[in-house]
Amino acid sequence: MDTNVRIAVDAMGGDNAPGQIVKGTVEAVNERKDIKVLLVGKEAVIKEELKNYNYDKERLVIVNADDVITNDEAPVMAIRRKKDSSIVVAMNLVKSGEADAFVSAGSTGAVLVGGQFIVGRIKGVERPPLAPLLPTMNGVSLLIDCGANVDARPTHLVQFAKMGSIYMEHVVGIKNPRVAIVNIGTEEEKGNMLVKETFPLLKNCNDINFIGSIEAREIPNGAADVIVCEAFVGNVILKLYEGLGGALISKIKTGLMSTTKSKIGALLCKPALKETLKSFDASEYGGAPLLGLNGLVVKTHGNSKSVEVKNSIIQCVTFTEQQINEKIRMNIQEE
Amino acid sequence: MDTNVRIAVDAMGGDNAPGQIVKGTVEAVNERKDIKVLLVGKEAVIKEELKNYNYDKERLVIVNADDVITNDEAPVMAIRRKKDSSIVVAMNLVKSGEADAFVSAGSTGAVLVGGQFIVGRIKGVERPPLAPLLPTMNGVSLLIDCGANVDARPTHLVQFAKMGSIYMEHVVGIKNPRVAIVNIGTEEEKGNMLVKETFPLLKNCNDINFIGSIEAREIPNGAADVIVCEAFVGNVILKLYEGLGGALISKIKTGLMSTTKSKIGALLCKPALKETLKSFDASEYGGAPLLGLNGLVVKTHGNSKSVEVKNSIIQCVTFTEQQINEKIRMNIQEE
Repeated sequence: MDTNVRIAVDAMGGDNAPGQIVKGTVEAVNERKDIKVLLVGKEAVIKEELKNYNYDKERLVIVNADDVITNDEAPVMAIRRKKDSSIVVAMNLVKSGEADAFVSAGSTGAVLVGGQFIVGRIKGVERPPLAPLLPTMNGVSLLIDCGANVDARPTHLVQFAKMGSIYMEHVVGIKNPRVAIVNIGTEEEKGNMLVKETFPLLKNCNDINFIGSIEAREIPNGAADVIVCEAFVGNVILKLYEGLGGALISKIKTGLMSTTKSKIGALLCKPALKETLKSFDASEYGGAPLLGLNGLVVKTHGNSKSVEVKNSIIQCVTFTEQQINEKIRMNIQEE
Repeated sequence: MDTNVRIAVDAMGGDNAPGQIVKGTVEAVNERKDIKVLLVGKEAVIKEELKNYNYDKERLVIVNADDVITNDEAPVMAIRRKKDSSIVVAMNLVKSGEADAFVSAGSTGAVLVGGQFIVGRIKGVERPPLAPLLPTMNGVSLLIDCGANVDARPTHLVQFAKMGSIYMEHVVGIKNPRVAIVNIGTEEEKGNMLVKETFPLLKNCNDINFIGSIEAREIPNGAADVIVCEAFVGNVILKLYEGLGGALISKIKTGLMSTTKSKIGALLCKPALKETLKSFDASEYGGAPLLGLNGLVVKTHGNSKSVEVKNSIIQCVTFTEQQINEKIRMNIQEE
C-alpha cells in the first residue's frame, strides 16, 4: 500500500504556470519523502519543464489533461463543460480517492465551484469556506470565509468557527485557538443583522473558544486566531491586506530613495527591513484551504512562485496526517 | 452681519480633551481670520486652558455645557438624557442656526445619533453617511459610508454616491470624481445582493461619474475618488487601514532596530521615512463629515491632537463657503 500523501497539483493554473508550478512540485518532492505528486496538465508541456530537474520518478507522475480553465471564464460553466481541464481532472482524482489533496494557483472561482460540485461537501457541512492565513504581529490568523458564496446565514458562520478552530489547532498548532467574529464594535449589541444573530450562537458553542467581536483594527495585532466573517467582508479584508501592504512598502521605497542621506541609510537597512516585511507577506504562508470537502482542496495565490507552490503542497501532509476531515465530520455530526 | 463661518467645537470630546482641543481651536482662529469658534464644554475648565494662549476674543467664545457624553455610553440614551452635554448643546447651536458646523472628537455613536436626531437630515436624504478621507498612493479617496447604520438599502448607496461626488468635487477639488462600489470582483454580475441591486442604479445615474466595481486591493492605489459601500464594510475598511498601517510601521521599526548596521541606516533614513509615512496617515486629513444634514457635523479621530482639530475646523470653511448642503439639497430633490 502506498503510504505517501498523494497530492494532485494543477500544473496549468496561475500566472507563472507551468514553469514555477513544476519547479515548486519538484522542490516539494525532493524535500519530503512522504509525498507523491500527480502533476495534472498538458503532458508534453510538463515533460519539457521536468527535463530541467532531478527527482524521484516514482513520486512525481504526470496525469494528462488537455484543457485549461482561464481566469476570465465563468466558473460554473467552465467546470461543467471543460471535462478535460487540469482542474476538473485533478478534482476527479480527489473524488475517486486516487489523490488525498489538490493544489491549484488557477481560477479561484473554478476551484471553489469544482470543490463543491466535484469533490463534494462533507455530510452536514452547509457551505465550504475558503480560509487563508493572514500574517499578524505575532504569527498568523485564519480568516474564514473569503470564498465566493456571499450572503451567508448564521449557521454557516458557526460551522466556519468550528472548522477554523480544528484547522488552527491541528494544522497550525495553536492550542485552544481564540475565535472572534468581525464586527464594527466590541459590544454584544453592535453589528449588522447577520452578526447580531450569529453572536449568541457562537457564545453557546462549547467546542470553540469564542472570545467575542473583533474590530478590523485589531486583526493585524493578532487579537484572535480564527477570524469569522461572511465571505464578502472576508474578501475585503484579504484584498485590503494585500493592497495596503504593497502600497505602504512602495511608499517606503520612494521615501528611502528621496534624499542622498536616506539612500545611504537604505543600503544599510535593506537586509533587516526585507526580513521584517517578508514576515508580513501573506503569500509566505502557503495556500488557503477550502474546508469541509471530502478531500483537501488548497488554493494558492495566482502569482505564486515555486516556494509558495512547494509550501502549499507540504501543507497538505499535515492536513491529511492530522485527519482534519475526520475531525470536521465528527464535530459537525455531533450537532 | 457676522460673515465669519461659525463653528461649534466639542471641547470635552476625545482622548486628548480638553487640552489638545483648545490648543487646536486657538491655532485655527489664529490662522484663519474668517472663522468664529464656539468652544462648547465646562466653562471653568476651558477658561483655564485658554489662559495659555493669545487669540482674538471676538472670534473664540465659550458656550458652557456642564455634562459630557463618554465613549462607553449607549448613544441614543445619552443624547436623549444628557441635554446639557457638550455634544447636545453644540448640536442645538447648529440646529438653531447659531453655528454653521460642529466638530467633535468625542463618541462617534453620539455624534451620529445627535446629527440625525438633533441637527436633522436634509429633506429627501434617507440616511446621513459618515465619510472619512483615506490616504492613497496619489492623494485621498472618500470612503462613504462608515457610519453606524448598517444593512443599507440600494437607494441609500445611490445617495451616498451623489453626496460623496459633490463633496469630493467642491470641498476636496477633484473634478468629475470617479465613483466606484466596493465589490469582490470587477465583473458586473459579482457581489452580494446589495451590490448586485445597487450596481445598475449607479450605472443609470447621469450626475455621477460611475466607473464600476472596485476591489479592496485597489483602494490604496487610489483607483477611485468616491468609494461607495455599506457602513459595516466601510467600517472594516477604515479600521483595517488604521490597524494595518500601524502594525506595518511598528514591524518596520523593529526591523530597523534589529542589527547594528540597520540601526545606523535607520538614523539616516528617519527624516525621509517619517515624511513618507505621514502622507499615509489617515489622521492627517482632518475629520470625517457626516453628510446630508441641515448643517455640517464633522467627526475627528478620538485620539486627535491639536493639528487634526485645527484641520477639521478649517475644513468646515470650504464646506460652508461652497454651499455643499445647498448642492446636496438640489441634487437629491431632482430625483
